[in-house]
Amino acid sequence: MIDTGTIYLDNAGTTPVDPQVIESIIPFLGSRFGNASSLHSLGQDARKALEDSRESVSKILNCRLSEIVFTSGGTESDNIAIKGLAAGVKAVNGSNHIITTKIEHHAVLHACEQLEKVGYLVTYLSVDKHGLIDLNELENAINDNTSLVSVMLANNEIGTIQPIREISDVIKKCSEKLGRKIFFHTDAVQGAGILDLDVGKLGVDLMSLSGHKFHGPKGVGLLFIRRGTPIEPLIVGGGQERERRSGTSNVAGVVGFTTALFIAERDRVKNVDLCLKLRDKLMHGILDSIDNAFLNGHPTLRLPGNVNISFKGIEGEIILLGLDMAGVCASSGSACSSGSLDPSHVLLAIGLNDEIARSSIRFTFGKYNSIAEIERVIDILTELIPRLRSMPYLQ
Amino acid sequence: MIDTGTIYLDNAGTTPVDPQVIESIIPFLGSRFGNASSLHSLGQDARKALEDSRESVSKILNCRLSEIVFTSGGTESDNIAIKGLAAGVKAVNGSNHIITTKIEHHAVLHACEQLEKVGYLVTYLSVDKHGLIDLNELENAINDNTSLVSVMLANNEIGTIQPIREISDVIKKCSEKLGRKIFFHTDAVQGAGILDLDVGKLGVDLMSLSGHKFHGPKGVGLLFIRRGTPIEPLIVGGGQERERRSGTSNVAGVVGFTTALFIAERDRVKNVDLCLKLRDKLMHGILDSIDNAFLNGHPTLRLPGNVNISFKGIEGEIILLGLDMAGVCASSGSACSSGSLDPSHVLLAIGLNDEIARSSIRFTFGKYNSIAEIERVIDILTELIPRLRSMPYLQ
Repeated sequence: MIDTGTIYLDNAGTTPVDPQVIESIIPFLGSRFGNASSLHSLGQDARKALEDSRESVSKILNCRLSEIVFTSGGTESDNIAIKGLAAGVKAVNGSNHIITTKIEHHAVLHACEQLEKVGYLVTYLSVDKHGLIDLNELENAINDNTSLVSVMLANNEIGTIQPIREISDVIKKCSEKLGRKIFFHTDAVQGAGILDLDVGKLGVDLMSLSGHKFHGPKGVGLLFIRRGTPIEPLIVGGGQERERRSGTSNVAGVVGFTTALFIAERDRVKNVDLCLKLRDKLMHGILDSIDNAFLNGHPTLRLPGNVNISFKGIEGEIILLGLDMAGVCASSGSACSSGSLDPSHVLLAIGLNDEIARSSIRFTFGKYNSIAEIERVIDILTELIPRLRSMPYLQ
Repeated sequence: MIDTGTIYLDNAGTTPVDPQVIESIIPFLGSRFGNASSLHSLGQDARKALEDSRESVSKILNCRLSEIVFTSGGTESDNIAIKGLAAGVKAVNGSNHIITTKIEHHAVLHACEQLEKVGYLVTYLSVDKHGLIDLNELENAINDNTSLVSVMLANNEIGTIQPIREISDVIKKCSEKLGRKIFFHTDAVQGAGILDLDVGKLGVDLMSLSGHKFHGPKGVGLLFIRRGTPIEPLIVGGGQERERRSGTSNVAGVVGFTTALFIAERDRVKNVDLCLKLRDKLMHGILDSIDNAFLNGHPTLRLPGNVNISFKGIEGEIILLGLDMAGVCASSGSACSSGSLDPSHVLLAIGLNDEIARSSIRFTFGKYNSIAEIERVIDILTELIPRLRSMPYLQ
């Protein structure tokens, strides 16, 4: 990784692009610039790169080539999954009820809110203090009007991992009882390179991924759409991606995405092991040496690269500023909501009050982090937090 | 430009990325990888690059910074413009009538068709044999239910340039008569680097651009949205681009787009001059030396880089194959529809019959083409076309 002169602990926000990924992208910005829809050699060369990418990805997801739709990112994938599926199913059988959770990414939540504005019904499942949904609540929420359940694989703020397979089993059981398919989407944006993305094992019909969360480029993502899933496309035009996502294929982006996913999957065990070490070091380092600091999220069912801590009594953004001045990049809430004055909807959903929610900092690790960096961050925090707490004008 | 070993005459399909553009992109794949929504230094560095880009672009478009929305490409921009505006205006005043033309890009046409499926009314204006719309037909089509008129700046297949300013004047006149704003969108994807993109002079409320059409990267585009234009966003989530297009900003892509647009605008006069020379050379070279070859599109009101010719009696795709084997990249119809068995909707709209439409080839030039290449292509065609015509099994 290129040295940025900082300790970068915001890998859930975005990740440094792997140099091997950059290397794989460059030819497609250069001589291999063809439009993958063109019939001439340059176009066909681009198409081959696109289809080779699709094949590599399909092996990791354990799905058909035709079930992969490349998009411009996780947010677009979520929007297609929610709104495209909702419209697609409604056209088939009139169902217009969607179930999701209170702690989804805003891409899912705001898509659901758009649907509510045009007459769809949405149930937002609550979560417990660790961020887990209740399978009974899910089962009770499903009715004969339900078309889609969307539950994220792992939460981007607190790192809690949902029992996707068990959720899938509940949905399948209800589907059988109703004699009608209920579709299941998971936003797996935070899971790539960490959790198993086998869509068969997960039991999902739709799954969103985003390249820049696993050392790939920004501006490219993926939506897995199981065969037979009705989808009204969000972006129409030239009919690319089997009519499900039009627009000139971003071949360089897709190749970068694929290289990144391949590396992430290949090195998954090693990276998870590293992140677990970093996580436990930081978690214990903070909780053992700083008063009134609380871990948010599940103690064990959490992403290995996620530590979310509330430092009672100080605004998260003040802590961020202090960390940034000391050369440490972390985040309060998700990157997407940074700068927002509202406390995190995720932290409120797990039962924190406004004040504690606002005092939270998210540290997220990746393969380029080291134990030495974590030790340095613990030192910085051990000095910073009491100092901030002692400043009367910050109270 | 990196040598691809071919004569590339498919610049309307996509363009080689300018080496200076690649150079501007690289840092944002490397050490400047921050998420522009993050509050820490790395995030703010990315945000600054994003906002600097917006400022550069705003100067070329002569618009406000807040009126620029970066997207994943021209197709997405068109989809937001058509569907987002239609829903936005409908929510305000109930209008649900849209006017467009029969020769728009499929991104516009299919977006309109999606709207028709959910109850909107769409008028598709016809064009004359040169591909120009009739201003009287437009004026007569406007009624007190019209919310949007969408007419492309220049056609991607035949290169015909519409009188956008005059169209804007007609719309303004009708708006005043109705006492209600009718919005005007232009798909200017083919115009960048060739025509003036000043939105004030053009008199448009919305304008779509695509980076890879002017030597920028694929996967990034722009939608100009005039202040006060109601838009229901297509992709929702983290609220990027002032809530009009969510998703982590593709900073590398936006920087590349901006560098490319800056260079295209700076060198516009020079490039237009070159393209005009190439166009006239190829047009006359073909028409003077090959029988039964006809120019499609307007004789003068056409893109300087576009020559579209019907070679009576031969399927366009056979000619393409022959050209490709001789090292020349051209296209039949648009890249987006390549491989489709239907003749071009544009060529049918200007009155060609199926057979002539299918026998058409589009040659499109850019700044990396030379007179020597055109001379070589004329030689190749002068030999190829009679040879193909003499093959009995191709008749």
